[in-house]
Amino acid sequence: MRAGPNYRYEDVAQFITTLVDNGTLVVGARAPSLRAVCRQRRISLSTALQAYRLLEDRGVLEARPQSGYYVARGRTSALRTPAISQPPAEPTTVAISGLLLKLMEYAGDPALVPLGCAIPSAELLAAGRLDRLLARAARVKGLRCNTYTEPRGDAGLRREIARRATQWGQAVSPQDIAITCGCTEALSLALTSVTKPGDTIAIESPTYFGVLHTIEALNLKVFELPTEAATGIDLAALAQALKMRRITACLFASSFNNPLGCTMPDEKKHAVLEVLARHEVPLIEDDTYGDIYFGKERPTPFMALDRRGSTIYCSSFSKTVAPGYRIGWIATGRHMQQVLERKHALTLCGPALPQAALADFLASGGYDAHLRRIRRAFQQNIAQMTRAIEKAFPEGTKVTRPAGGFVVWLELPRPLDSRVLLAQALEKGICFAPGDVFSASDRYRNCLRLSCAHPWTARIERGVATLGALARSQTRP
Amino acid sequence: MRAGPNYRYEDVAQFITTLVDNGTLVVGARAPSLRAVCRQRRISLSTALQAYRLLEDRGVLEARPQSGYYVARGRTSALRTPAISQPPAEPTTVAISGLLLKLMEYAGDPALVPLGCAIPSAELLAAGRLDRLLARAARVKGLRCNTYTEPRGDAGLRREIARRATQWGQAVSPQDIAITCGCTEALSLALTSVTKPGDTIAIESPTYFGVLHTIEALNLKVFELPTEAATGIDLAALAQALKMRRITACLFASSFNNPLGCTMPDEKKHAVLEVLARHEVPLIEDDTYGDIYFGKERPTPFMALDRRGSTIYCSSFSKTVAPGYRIGWIATGRHMQQVLERKHALTLCGPALPQAALADFLASGGYDAHLRRIRRAFQQNIAQMTRAIEKAFPEGTKVTRPAGGFVVWLELPRPLDSRVLLAQALEKGICFAPGDVFSASDRYRNCLRLSCAHPWTARIERGVATLGALARSQTRP
Repeated sequence: MRAGPNYRYEDVAQFITTLVDNGTLVVGARAPSLRAVCRQRRISLSTALQAYRLLEDRGVLEARPQSGYYVARGRTSALRTPAISQPPAEPTTVAISGLLLKLMEYAGDPALVPLGCAIPSAELLAAGRLDRLLARAARVKGLRCNTYTEPRGDAGLRREIARRATQWGQAVSPQDIAITCGCTEALSLALTSVTKPGDTIAIESPTYFGVLHTIEALNLKVFELPTEAATGIDLAALAQALKMRRITACLFASSFNNPLGCTMPDEKKHAVLEVLARHEVPLIEDDTYGDIYFGKERPTPFMALDRRGSTIYCSSFSKTVAPGYRIGWIATGRHMQQVLERKHALTLCGPALPQAALADFLASGGYDAHLRRIRRAFQQNIAQMTRAIEKAFPEGTKVTRPAGGFVVWLELPRPLDSRVLLAQALEKGICFAPGDVFSASDRYRNCLRLSCAHPWTARIERGVATLGALARSQTRP
Repeated sequence: MRAGPNYRYEDVAQFITTLVDNGTLVVGARAPSLRAVCRQRRISLSTALQAYRLLEDRGVLEARPQSGYYVARGRTSALRTPAISQPPAEPTTVAISGLLLKLMEYAGDPALVPLGCAIPSAELLAAGRLDRLLARAARVKGLRCNTYTEPRGDAGLRREIARRATQWGQAVSPQDIAITCGCTEALSLALTSVTKPGDTIAIESPTYFGVLHTIEALNLKVFELPTEAATGIDLAALAQALKMRRITACLFASSFNNPLGCTMPDEKKHAVLEVLARHEVPLIEDDTYGDIYFGKERPTPFMALDRRGSTIYCSSFSKTVAPGYRIGWIATGRHMQQVLERKHALTLCGPALPQAALADFLASGGYDAHLRRIRRAFQQNIAQMTRAIEKAFPEGTKVTRPAGGFVVWLELPRPLDSRVLLAQALEKGICFAPGDVFSASDRYRNCLRLSCAHPWTARIERGVATLGALARSQTRP
């Protein structure tokens, strides 16, 4: 297929590639039809077809039957992806809380370019239909709902969650689901149900700072596992740790781990479950990002693969439709009684009307269409972000290629210090998450996470450019 | 004022007293006007006035300027009030969780006569205006509110809470307030901010089982103080405990303690604060019921009296307007950073729209009128309940006379076992809270708490009668 540039079809392929490279055509966008290309470039249909097949071979376009050609991914980025992480081989006490409340405050500050917290923007989510259902529930169900929910939370909502889970082969009874205040409460309930203070939890590294903060608040220790940006934890390292140490539980993101975006392939998930079963160690699964996949199929959660029933599944609606509603859930058969006891003791139950409204929203259909729309939006944002990073950041910067979610992780050439960079960025009105808060062992100082959770604008483009310039001036010899 | 029964005004006074005794006139109800009494009883205005003054002297009626005469309280009940409690003089590990989830489930079961959980009925609260404001907020503010709130919660709501607190002399900045998931989360954040597992907390005895459950979940011990049904804890016992033991914090209800209904007089509150200051022990104040007072003035919270700033104040809107909204708050200057850190780690933040709606509700006025209405309703319910108890329960039953809130506490003659009574009552479709769950030391087996949180109906009247009959058959020799 190698061909000189003077072949017509190669010219056409180059033209389409340029459109993708400069952002005119974003990931998932429909490419010009063959007929349109023939007309515009004054070529024959067979030449156009030859060009598009070349682009398919190169992975720039993909054909969809009866639909046409679509941009398969951004151009092959010149940036490398980060290598597998190398955390310490010892359990670590967690103490990262200092900066986190600040990051939350920055996230609420409209004056800052929002590259910090992984909170999808309300404009992008466009959850007006859910709000209208809440308004209706408040009018129609206000009297009925002005009381505490049953301990597990709204029964209708739990039914809808159970019904959706069957789509990806997860058989869970509404009785085995409890509604929580976001995934944060789900994870804290899961952790306290299977651990006591001082215990050690094995986690991915880097891992979401909110999880580290929960672990810190519960006085647990972490054992950070080497983690690869595409396929997740190092299985051998996990097996070794379980053999050599007292690991009380594992806490892994099943899909599109925040911040790396990694997802373990199914075989690896099976292998993880097997080694955990051998050591009788429970798995806490954080599947917050599972619905935001860019590929053809939703990754399968551990819980759907676990025949032993030792997985405690945690997720939420905060990343897909309603961060403002604070509704998450926890699914577990074996540990439900402990979970309910602790929930009753610490928060009693969540508010009734938002749960009723979300149940109505799920029951009325349209959530899948909503998910398709936001997946496309996040995928396009990541493509734009990757392009902007490549333009602006210093040579040698590595960046992840997540297949879902809406964050990217950057590894910058040393001696970059992302805390220093953050201070400089805040002065320029830009916020991001510095790398070290994703580790309990003060790693990743030269890394940072950028959120792609807002619609792409010139302001964000400029923000990334400024951030890259600041990074360049820090890393320049 | 002593007069023979053949005086006309005494006849009239007896007639009105009968109306109060048989429940025709309930506490807070308006008595027939003087003119109406003259007409009905064919007496002169001066005789009517003499009768009503006698009833005032006897505390049956009270005159309200420019308004007329009102029933001051139920008739002097024949039942005695419980004596001061006698808990053990040793710290106790808490383990009461078994029954509590069941009690919550009973509370949600419409088939049961609802004398169990202290959850005000939605009919009685009639919070439709709040629901309409939620509907409006969902329509108007949905986009703005579909994100995480700032760490402390909705700023408008915190301003309104601070503004209301000034009414009873509590000067608190909105910056020193954080919104929580009901008073339960407020108390659990307060406890974890000043204690670590294994520490001992001094509490009232009996005390609300939810508080005991929170303490149990946090692996704390309790030191239960002797507590009197009108004026609260035994100050000398507190002073002694602080002197002799390592008490890390105290947790007291400032007003209308659940279940006793006791309120410490201001001088006692001052004395408590003084002895706590001497030992540098912080006070966690649970003021959930403070707004539901039947007297002329709201009791002053500890926080308003504490010049040292060592009180952590917790309250909620669950008892006064919206159990279904799950909105409480915690007020503290000194411990705010720890509170926010822990809240971030365990639940992140609460949902935004219910907070915005409640802020609108408070700002728009009318909450005070709402409170006046429900205070009257709860006071009447308690009067009806007391009367029904006296009719039905065995001789020797003692009952509290709360000056606020909506629960009464019964001490029955031994060998009554309230767990056995509960099992029998559930079979008859009646729910209540057995006495032992209000103690960490398996006390109060012969006690029970009845909730007066639902509008008084023949069904509830029958329920109390049945319960009394069951108790009688258990205590009969």
